[in-house]
Parts: sequence; structure tokens; C-alpha cells
Amino acid sequence: MIFKQPTHYFIAAGHAEGYSPLNAFDQALLEAGVGDTNLVRMSSILPPSCQRIEPIDLPYGALVPVAYADMVSSNPGEWIAAAVAIGVPADPKLPGLIMEHHGVGRLDEIEAQVREMAVQGMAYRNREIQKVVSIGMEHQVDKHGAAFAGVVLWDESVRGREEG
Amino acid sequence: MIFKQPTHYFIAAGHAEGYSPLNAFDQALLEAGVGDTNLVRMSSILPPSCQRIEPIDLPYGALVPVAYADMVSSNPGEWIAAAVAIGVPADPKLPGLIMEHHGVGRLDEIEAQVREMAVQGMAYRNREIQKVVSIGMEHQVDKHGAAFAGVVLWDESVRGREEG
Amino acid sequence: MIFKQPTHYFIAAGHAEGYSPLNAFDQALLEAGVGDTNLVRMSSILPPSCQRIEPIDLPYGALVPVAYADMVSSNPGEWIAAAVAIGVPADPKLPGLIMEHHGVGRLDEIEAQVREMAVQGMAYRNREIQKVVSIGMEHQVDKHGAAFAGVVLWDESVRGREEG
Repeated sequence: MIFKQPTHYFIAAGHAEGYSPLNAFDQALLEAGVGDTNLVRMSSILPPSCQRIEPIDLPYGALVPVAYADMVSSNPGEWIAAAVAIGVPADPKLPGLIMEHHGVGRLDEIEAQVREMAVQGMAYRNREIQKVVSIGMEHQVDKHGAAFAGVVLWDESVRGREEG
Repeated sequence: MIFKQPTHYFIAAGHAEGYSPLNAFDQALLEAGVGDTNLVRMSSILPPSCQRIEPIDLPYGALVPVAYADMVSSNPGEWIAAAVAIGVPADPKLPGLIMEHHGVGRLDEIEAQVREMAVQGMAYRNREIQKVVSIGMEHQVDKHGAAFAGVVLWDESVRGREEG
Repeated sequence: MIFKQPTHYFIAAGHAEGYSPLNAFDQALLEAGVGDTNLVRMSSILPPSCQRIEPIDLPYGALVPVAYADMVSSNPGEWIAAAVAIGVPADPKLPGLIMEHHGVGRLDEIEAQVREMAVQGMAYRNREIQKVVSIGMEHQVDKHGAAFAGVVLWDESVRGREEG
């Protein structure tokens, strides 16, 4: 756990209703394509030279490091949103910054805010940004709803799940 | 961290009073037999073919992935409870689902709810259940109390702590 | 993740203002010297024979197990504090206990409390204490402020970041 540097990442987002708040969260993970894994939350840096890939089918039950934002609500009619943004550095030898944000409201506001947070955090480091990558999801609650957005770290040398 | 698939699991629960809320939580972990380790919380899947074992003495300070529910309260007289449930799939090549629930109240309600959450989550996946495994604990608060229930993932190839 | 026993640790603390609560937290991590890594939170044991070292420059983006306390506030003028304490056992074959505490208030109170929590937790174990090691940080909020204190587990066989 201490050693292994993830070499690749992908971004993912989903939303869902569910039988309970936790079921809604679980189903938002499935919608995002990262369900059926064991997400381990971390604070929240893009390792140097970490390459973006398209989302892959993670092995069932794998322990996967992820930086994520989520929002769960049981207030019918309420809009909720969650978003993440990555400040990707111009210098690939330096790390990038992942920011998370969530709240009651629409995605455009939440995602604009999380992008600004990534910009501000890179500025604090005096670290030039090549680009900001972001993703988010919004959801209007019926009974129990969840929105999820995350950055999944991965190692391409590991094969994903065999399609069955 | 990304690679290793846990091959075994056990369930554990405990409750305790303590000098502070965190002391109560720490002592509930000890009562559950998972104290003196470094629990790393994860969301919450039983890997395929993961076999249930009896609780073992985990090595002191080991980094151990766990899905857990906990409830801490400082309201004297209040009943609190925490429970986890695993939807074990009929097909051992597929993963199971671990759900966590906690709250103010008695264990029978909390555990019935978490079992239903596991059933609902497996139904959402259209995944047949072989059985639901659950465990929980309740506690009536005196000053600072805690209840804990968890599913500990493990690898049988690793030896537990030598009895000293 | 299950196997590797960290062999060394260091303590760190920082505080900062920021553009948002999460930016303040991120910048408190940087001030503490543990920014630009991926902290994985754990509950909170010092492994047996774990040796204290001076803080090192952790590799960028490394997955690092850490026990920490943090406090974030957006109430202008408010004092906040976070502190951790380690009950180091007299017998090096036994594990120590890490406690975390945070709140509104000044550091002297918060740190005295977390030290007592470590003493109480070791007393509950009937485990003799050699010493209590603690660290903390306080912050007076301007707009969005954060205080952080943590115990970082590490393996000396791994080299830190090359100075660039």
C-alpha cells in the first residue's frame, strides 16, 4: 500500500435512486461503472505522469484507490450534485491536484466550483496547469437519491475483469 | 493495494463505554476482536469465492480492509445499534454485496433493515442470493457509548498474531 | 495492503486558510509537509517496534496510511484546533494507540484531551506506557480555515522524493 504508484486513471460519475440512502449510493456507483469493487477513499493527488484511460471493468471486489465526491439526499424533489476536478500540471514530473465538491443544487454550479477549487489549489502551489479535467453528475431526488463522481487510480499492468 | 484480492472474510461486532466517544469506539473494536489493528474502511463488496472463516487474531497494527457500521452516542440512556449484512451470491464467481446500517434504536430493527438493504441491492443487480449473513450489536449509553459491526477481509495465506 | 507492516512513523501538523474549506484542508496538508500525497485514513494503531523518524518528503502521489485529526471552519474569528497523541508502549513487542481529537477551541485544551484519551485507551488495555507523543495545530479562521495533525506510517526501506 505504501509503495505502489498508480500509473493510470479514469474518471467516472453516476446517479441513482435506491431503497435506502446507502442503496442509492451503491447503485450510483454501479451506474458510474465502479460498483462491485471496494473503493478506498484517499486525499487526493494525481501522481506524476499518471495517464488517463477510458473506464475499464474493474475486477470484482478489488481494492481500488479513489478520490470522490458524493451527495445523498432523502428530500423529495431536491436537486443534488457531485463533481470532481483534476488540475493536470504542465510539467509531467509534478503531481496534479484532485478536488471534490458536492451539494444541494445543479451540476453546472457544483462543477464550476470544483474546477475553480482545482485552479486555486494549483495556483497556491505555483504550479502551472496544462488543463482541468472534470466530471460530475446531478440527480433529482424521488425518495432516496445519490450522485457520485470520482477519479479512479489504476495500474495498466493489471488486467480488468474478463467479460463473462 | 490495487491488486491483492482478499480470499477470506470474517464478521465481528462489539460495543463499549469509554472515556470519550473515540475511546468508546476503540474499545468496541477491542470487544469485537479487531482492536489493535489499522482498519481501512472500504465500500463494500465481498470478492468472488471469498470464504468465511472464524475470527482470527489479526497481527498488531496490520492494515486491514474492512466494511463496517458504527454508532457513537453521548446521550445517556439512549439505545444505539450498528449492523452489517452480506448478500452472498448463489454463483461463487460473482461478488456479494455488503451493506452497513446504524442508528438510534434497538438491534432487531437495525439488523432487519440492513438485511433488507443487502437483499434489495442484490435484486437490483439481478443476482441470485444464496444466503444473507449478518451481525450487529446494540448498546445502551451511559456516558459515551459505541456499537460496531464489520466484515473483515483477509488472506488465509497470512498468519495471524502468535499467541503470546 | 493486508500484509505490509509499516516500520517507521513521523508526526506532522499544519494549518491554513484557503479559497474553500477543502482548499484550506489541502493547504494545511501542504503546511504539514504531507501534501501532494494520497492519504489513506486508518484507525489508529502504532505497530509494534515502529520507530519514529523525522518527517520526510513523501513521494508525490504515494498512497500513505495515516491516522489524523482535522477541523475545518468557515466561521470568521473562530479558533479551531486538531491534535493527535500516541501512547507508546513500554514493551516494544506490543502496539501503541493513536488517538485523534479536534474541535472549536484552542490547542492547549484539544491537545491535553487527546493525550488523556491515549492514556485512558492504554489503561483500558492494561498496557504500560513508556511515553505519550503528541502534536497539534490551531488556527483562527478568516474565511475558510483548517487545522490538521497526523501520524504518518512509513517504511524506511522506501526512499522519499528526490529533491528537485
